[in-house]
Amino acid sequence: MEQEKDRPIIYGRHPVVDAIRAGTPIDKVILQEGIRGELEKELRHLCKAEGIPMQVAPKERLNKIVRGNHQGVIALQALIRYYRLEDVLPGIFEKSESPLLVLLDGVTDVRNFGAIARTAEACGAHALVIGQKNSAQINAEAMKTSAGALAKIPVCRESSLITAIEYLQLSGIRVLASDLQAENPIYSLDLMQPIAFVLGAEGEGISPAVARKADETFIIPQKGTTDSFNVSVAAGMMLYEAMRQREAGKG
Amino acid sequence: MEQEKDRPIIYGRHPVVDAIRAGTPIDKVILQEGIRGELEKELRHLCKAEGIPMQVAPKERLNKIVRGNHQGVIALQALIRYYRLEDVLPGIFEKSESPLLVLLDGVTDVRNFGAIARTAEACGAHALVIGQKNSAQINAEAMKTSAGALAKIPVCRESSLITAIEYLQLSGIRVLASDLQAENPIYSLDLMQPIAFVLGAEGEGISPAVARKADETFIIPQKGTTDSFNVSVAAGMMLYEAMRQREAGKG
Repeated sequence: MEQEKDRPIIYGRHPVVDAIRAGTPIDKVILQEGIRGELEKELRHLCKAEGIPMQVAPKERLNKIVRGNHQGVIALQALIRYYRLEDVLPGIFEKSESPLLVLLDGVTDVRNFGAIARTAEACGAHALVIGQKNSAQINAEAMKTSAGALAKIPVCRESSLITAIEYLQLSGIRVLASDLQAENPIYSLDLMQPIAFVLGAEGEGISPAVARKADETFIIPQKGTTDSFNVSVAAGMMLYEAMRQREAGKG
Repeated sequence: MEQEKDRPIIYGRHPVVDAIRAGTPIDKVILQEGIRGELEKELRHLCKAEGIPMQVAPKERLNKIVRGNHQGVIALQALIRYYRLEDVLPGIFEKSESPLLVLLDGVTDVRNFGAIARTAEACGAHALVIGQKNSAQINAEAMKTSAGALAKIPVCRESSLITAIEYLQLSGIRVLASDLQAENPIYSLDLMQPIAFVLGAEGEGISPAVARKADETFIIPQKGTTDSFNVSVAAGMMLYEAMRQREAGKG
């Protein structure tokens, strides 16, 4: 094992396969271009089953990451354990809690990601949901910005956010997307029911394909002229509003 | 004028006095140790009248900032114009609006400061209030993090936050402080009346002297185990709640 930046690296055919089989948290597997046969098949199968992103790259790229004999396979170890939605949802319903999830669509900024994790955990959200691609690296800075929350709140990594949304909807969870063009202010929505908030990248917002899947859109009202809220502040407002409705609804 | 980091510098007796008289925004005046007489008197008088912080420092410190002949006086030019509460309050009441202010007690982190300014402007807050000491530098990074808001929302710089709070209270503005030990959740407070939120530094919180002056304390409820909210996220939640009550109250 070597260190690359802040992530431990596993390399070599057997070590990588063994690590995945043992359930070691992996951010990404990098396979050398042109490698075919049993190893490739087995790796593709394992990565798919475990929800680990797999990338094919030229030999030079792998040589840059590892000095040793990598045999064409490298795995970047993760700082957290990843979950799947199927692992997390049943536990929430079993506790008779109303699911509160945060789905991140293209939030690649590491600090925003860490800040959202911190707020989500503090507001009692049950999980974060991210895609395999176009997500923030969960590196040391993300961990630090989260103030420890990333070690507590489950992060579900899904190969497709669209499929994840369909799965949530089939499970009775309403998917709510923030949209600057929406008419309903967030406080007019019922946030006591099972919900997942979708947050997009700052500037770009939620991708159109994801936005189309949402059950409802809402706006956080604005009075000033500043160009929208920072995404982690917007997340804080949404999660606060959900917490407020749920606390007030108890009494 | 020279550049030091991102702030223009004015130096020399007449240039500094003239700049202050002309209303040039100044972050700080630095006077060389041991300088006495008319210049010192005039500068002290001008700085006090204009609310500009003044610092006395050894000659070596001034020599490090300016290579030219500074004659014992340096002024660090500011990136924004500073206001006083007396300039800002009458205009709010004249517009028949209910004042919504944000008072920052020891928030020295430049990014948190910029983020709070961005949210405050977007939520329709009328001004930020900071102390002359123990505040964030309003430098290029603060401006950038504020997404332009620091050029729009007035920043009132007060020599004493305690005196500022007394002035607010005399003007009919209730001063509300976030406090982790408080019992009332923020949503139980009436935020439609004229209010000023006090925010403290992350970790340390509001200073005891300032906290004692508050009319009321409140808590933002938390469900998770993460150690409190980031100060700019907490500011977002408070300002959102004020905006929500004010919007909902209109109808």
